[in-house]
This record gives sequence, C-alpha cells and structure tokens, in this order.
Amino acid sequence: MARKAAKIGDGPRHTTIREVAELAGVSVATVSRILSGTYPAAPATRAKVMRAVEELDYVANHHARALQGTTRGSIAIIVNSVISPHYAHVAQGVQTQAAEDNRLCQIGTTGGEAERELAMVQFMREQHPEAVILVGNVAADEEYRARMSRYAHALAAIGSRLVLCGRPPLGPDVPAIVVEYDNTGGAFAATSHLLSGGHKRILFLGRRTGYTTADARIDGYRKALAAHGVEHDPHLEVDGTFERFEGYRMMKERLASGAPDFTAVFAANDQIAAGARQALVETGLRIPEDVSMVGFDDLPPAMDIDLTTVSLPHEELGRIAVRLALQHARMGGAPPHTVLGTHLVIRGSVRPLLPI
Amino acid sequence: MARKAAKIGDGPRHTTIREVAELAGVSVATVSRILSGTYPAAPATRAKVMRAVEELDYVANHHARALQGTTRGSIAIIVNSVISPHYAHVAQGVQTQAAEDNRLCQIGTTGGEAERELAMVQFMREQHPEAVILVGNVAADEEYRARMSRYAHALAAIGSRLVLCGRPPLGPDVPAIVVEYDNTGGAFAATSHLLSGGHKRILFLGRRTGYTTADARIDGYRKALAAHGVEHDPHLEVDGTFERFEGYRMMKERLASGAPDFTAVFAANDQIAAGARQALVETGLRIPEDVSMVGFDDLPPAMDIDLTTVSLPHEELGRIAVRLALQHARMGGAPPHTVLGTHLVIRGSVRPLLPI
Repeated sequence: MARKAAKIGDGPRHTTIREVAELAGVSVATVSRILSGTYPAAPATRAKVMRAVEELDYVANHHARALQGTTRGSIAIIVNSVISPHYAHVAQGVQTQAAEDNRLCQIGTTGGEAERELAMVQFMREQHPEAVILVGNVAADEEYRARMSRYAHALAAIGSRLVLCGRPPLGPDVPAIVVEYDNTGGAFAATSHLLSGGHKRILFLGRRTGYTTADARIDGYRKALAAHGVEHDPHLEVDGTFERFEGYRMMKERLASGAPDFTAVFAANDQIAAGARQALVETGLRIPEDVSMVGFDDLPPAMDIDLTTVSLPHEELGRIAVRLALQHARMGGAPPHTVLGTHLVIRGSVRPLLPI
Repeated sequence: MARKAAKIGDGPRHTTIREVAELAGVSVATVSRILSGTYPAAPATRAKVMRAVEELDYVANHHARALQGTTRGSIAIIVNSVISPHYAHVAQGVQTQAAEDNRLCQIGTTGGEAERELAMVQFMREQHPEAVILVGNVAADEEYRARMSRYAHALAAIGSRLVLCGRPPLGPDVPAIVVEYDNTGGAFAATSHLLSGGHKRILFLGRRTGYTTADARIDGYRKALAAHGVEHDPHLEVDGTFERFEGYRMMKERLASGAPDFTAVFAANDQIAAGARQALVETGLRIPEDVSMVGFDDLPPAMDIDLTTVSLPHEELGRIAVRLALQHARMGGAPPHTVLGTHLVIRGSVRPLLPI
C-alpha cells in the first residue's frame, strides 16, 4: 500500500484508462462506465476492472491529475476544537485566504492535549505544508516554549514554517511567525465602558491563571479599575474556563450565596456571557435592568443576546497568518510579528447607573 | 525535500542525537540544549547544529517516534465550512471518537465547491486515512453520484473507505458507508407541533429545491400539512440558504410587503430562525406573542433565543461514522447504512392559538 501511495507523487508518468482496459480485458468504454458508477455492470466485469484499477492505481492518477490543476500547496491549521466559535472563525479565515491563494487547507484538532498536538504537528509536517498555524490559548510555561521551539525548527528544516496565532512569541532565536491580537486593550476598553457608566462592583467571570488569553484579559480588567481609581476586590474574580456551561456554573454558584454583590459582569468571552445570562434569567434577574454585562469576541450568540462586547478580527487573524506565511516563504528574512487591534461593539446589555 | 520526507516513514532506522552531535562537532548536551530552545546558544553553534539536524532529519525522527507512540492511523472528515455549527459539531464527534480509538482526525473544508472537494479527497487519500467522511447537504444529481462513486472506488483501491454522513446513499454497486438522520420525520414533527397549536398559516423559510437536506425538510412540512388536512399554499414557502443572514433577509423581504400573512414560522434550521427572529424584533413583532417559531438542529443559538426546535444527534453522527468505518475495516462485508432519529425540543417560541 505504501508503494502504491508513493507512486501517486512520482514523476509525470500516469496510467491511462487504455492500460486499465487492456489489463482487465474489457473495452475502454466499459472501464469508463464502471468507474463513473452511473451504469449497471456485471459483478464479474466490475471485479476485473477494479482489480486492474487497483493494480495500476489508475483512479489515484485520475484524481492526481485533477488535483494538479486545482492547487499548488497546502496550509495546515491546528486548533483545540472546532466547536469553539473563535477557533472555527480563525480556521475559516485561514481556509478563505488559502483558497484565494490556491492552496488547500487542512484543520487538525488536539482537544487541548500537548501529546495530540505533537502528533498532529508531525502528521501535518509529513505532508509538507507551506505553513503550520497553531491557534489559541495556552499555558506558556517553559515546557510550552521548548515544544514550540522544536516545532519551529522541525518545520524550518523542511522549508515550512510555524505560525503562532493568538499565542505569545518565543524569542528571537525561534523561527516562528506570530500574529496576536490585543486582549489586554480590549478588556481595558470593555471594563472602562462599565466604569464610565458608574459601575464599581464588576464581576469578572473566567479567570484562569497561567493561561495567556485569560491572563491578558483579566490584566486589562485590573488596569481599567486602577485607571478609574476603583478599588480592586479579588473576591469579584471568578475562576472558570471559556465554555458556555462554565459561565452558567460560575453565575449559578455566585447567586446561590444570595443577592448579587455586583452591578455588572465582565465575561471573559461571549460563551461565558451566554451561560451567565441564562443563570441570571433563571433567577429572575434582567439584563440590563438588574445586571449589566459585557463579553469578549463578538461571535454568535452575542448578537442574539444583544450583548455589548469586544470585537476581535477572528477571520482576519487567520487570513493574515496565511498571508504572512506565504510572504515569508517568498521573501525570507526575520519571521514577522503582528498585533491586531480590537474594538468595542455597543449593544443593549449595559445600563449606566444613575447618580444618586 | 521529497527524499527527506520519504525518510520519515521508511523503516525503523532513526537518526540518534549522538549522530547529530558528531556531524555538528559539538556535544550531545549542546544539541539537546539548542533543540530544546530553552537555553541561549552562539549563533554559529546553533547554525552548525541545525545544519546537522536538517541533514539527518533528526527532529523529524524525534517527532516520528513520539507520533508512533501516540497514534495508529487517521480519519479524515471533509465539510463545506467549520463556522456552520452543524458541520462543526459533526466534526467534533468525529474528532472525539477518533481520539477514543487512538486515531488522528484531520478536517478539510471545501467551501461547497466540487473542484475543491475533489482536490481535498485526493489530498486526504495520499495520507492513507482509514476513512474519509463527507458531510452535508448536496445537490444529489447524476454528476454528484458519479463523483461519489469515483471517490468510493478510489478509497477502496487503497484499503480505505468513503463514509457519507447526512448524504443520500449511492446504490448497492458503490462501496460507501452511509449515516443519515431523519430530516423528513423531524420536519413533520415540528410542523405538526405548530398545527396542533391551531396554526394553519405556517411560513417555511429555507426552501432550496434540488438540495437533499432542504428537500427532505420541506417534504416533512408538506406531509404534515396534508396529514392535518390543512391546505398547502406554495406562497408560504420562501427560497433561501441555511445562513443566519439569509433568515434575516427572507423575513425582512416578507414583512416589507405589509402585515404578516402567517401566524407561525418553520425555519429550516436554527441559523435561519435566529436571523428571522432579528428581523421580526426590529419590526416590533414578538415571539411567541405575535409570531410562533420552530427551528431545526438544536444548536447554538437555539437555547439563547428560547427556540423550540428539532434536535439532531450531531456529534453522534460523527461518532457513528467513525465507529462504522473502523468496524467495516475489521469485519469487511457490505458497507452499512444507518438512519438516526430526531426529536422535538420544546422551549418558549410557540404560542398555541386560542380557539375562536
């Protein structure tokens, strides 16, 4: 089987339908009819043809020719999961830009496990992509930096490149392209929007110490409090991950201890906001009449829950990752490092507190 | 480069770190430090080591060994797009089951173009996956059947298999596994739920004649009308695709011609429902007080917009596709064909009409 697969890419020589017909002892028309699958054929005849097809790997060549006409190279993107709207939209941006540049795009998922990430990077590497794009929130410890450094050198060694998308840079020694976005600036703007409305007790949902995305967002939250001279109450920071059910859990537990000790909520992403909103509604609390809320991402379901949130250029992140990678493949030089900005999208989930 | 890549899979022989050190003329410890990327190193030394690494493809072997320990084979899934929650959740099911069975999962996207689908199938095929899973709505014409038949035979020729997920079967001659779900039954139940509430003027949003998923759902809608003895008014069927913005457009255009000539809406999926809901709200119409609505999928944002909808086993579709494929790889025999059921999820978007 390996031998046969190897043949696919070997040189220009291709099996012809005539050779298949000769080996099978049938007419070219019969081979064509059977391969098209649109006409009935005697099982014995089909069996002879399929044996010849397999022997000569004819269909593979047929497809290979079609392939050669449609694409030049490939781009790989690796994410934790595709049911996270953030990852899905970045992957969509990669796919769109890859298509515009006549590349195939393949997506690998890791479930957030380093071991599967390593296996996936190697698996992708064997297909000689022009770039492998790694996306998303990580615990950027020494082990992570060492792992990324190995990926970067392993890809550089075959003329490919590593792109870190929404992940921190690794230092000048490591040949990795970096495309980040401004988590801290976005969180600062969202928190300032609540503070400017007179909110001082702002619940932060989604603290996850040691994880780059969560750390950068809570950092913006704390900086905004300081900038507005509002006391920072660590009791208002709630630990949780970035899923909807976690937002529901965090708010349920918070409300279980009695009336809210906050007037506003900053959810670390829109998924958390949607879950927290459900918990508030179940408790009979209204947004924004009783509790104001802001999120982060501006992805579904932000629009459906009328959520004021921080808008990230998710698809543009993916598009830029591809453009920078292909540019670096052409021009070489030091791997680029880009930081994209964010902006606040005002909807109906925030009510300014009236001065008493 | 092809030569080097070929080496990765060739036999058990692996370059050792000692060989890299010898070729680079440095100590094993130095190679280890430089590859770990966690210690500073003189540029000249790094350059020597990386040349040796590249020459011996050492890092690839390092990765390959790690890979061999973590996985046996791979499963490929090909979808139109990953920003569609339906495709994303099916892909998630495939990824989850593949991980449980110790396989890698790679996702390819086509943007719905047959040409890119062909290129992607061939690209995936070259990596010898145990199965290639094709998901989703298609125009099942003769050209489609011929194309799928070629894929099925091309994969069978290398000992792999084609799985059609949520796509119609191709007939006994074609070696393809099929995993479907009951679109017509689900649409019948959703429409019956509205009819039982006394609704007779039910707007169908998302007709797309010739496309298997849309056709099956409108078929269930029409069958339910007939079963309840309610006259079928073709004017209540609105053409559109399955995106949120299409739902918004269809409802906006409908309301532009004046007051609603319907009391309820059957949106062909939850995305359409969310868009149509936004258009209704902008016009000052409330759900369910003024207009009742049901959707199809039970995916985000159904819960956030409190939508009564038809629940599909999205992730289970992906999981079953993988299980059937691996089972067929072990047992052989005729490729299985499975149809999964659906059920109605009652939320707050339907108001029964009071008998006059």
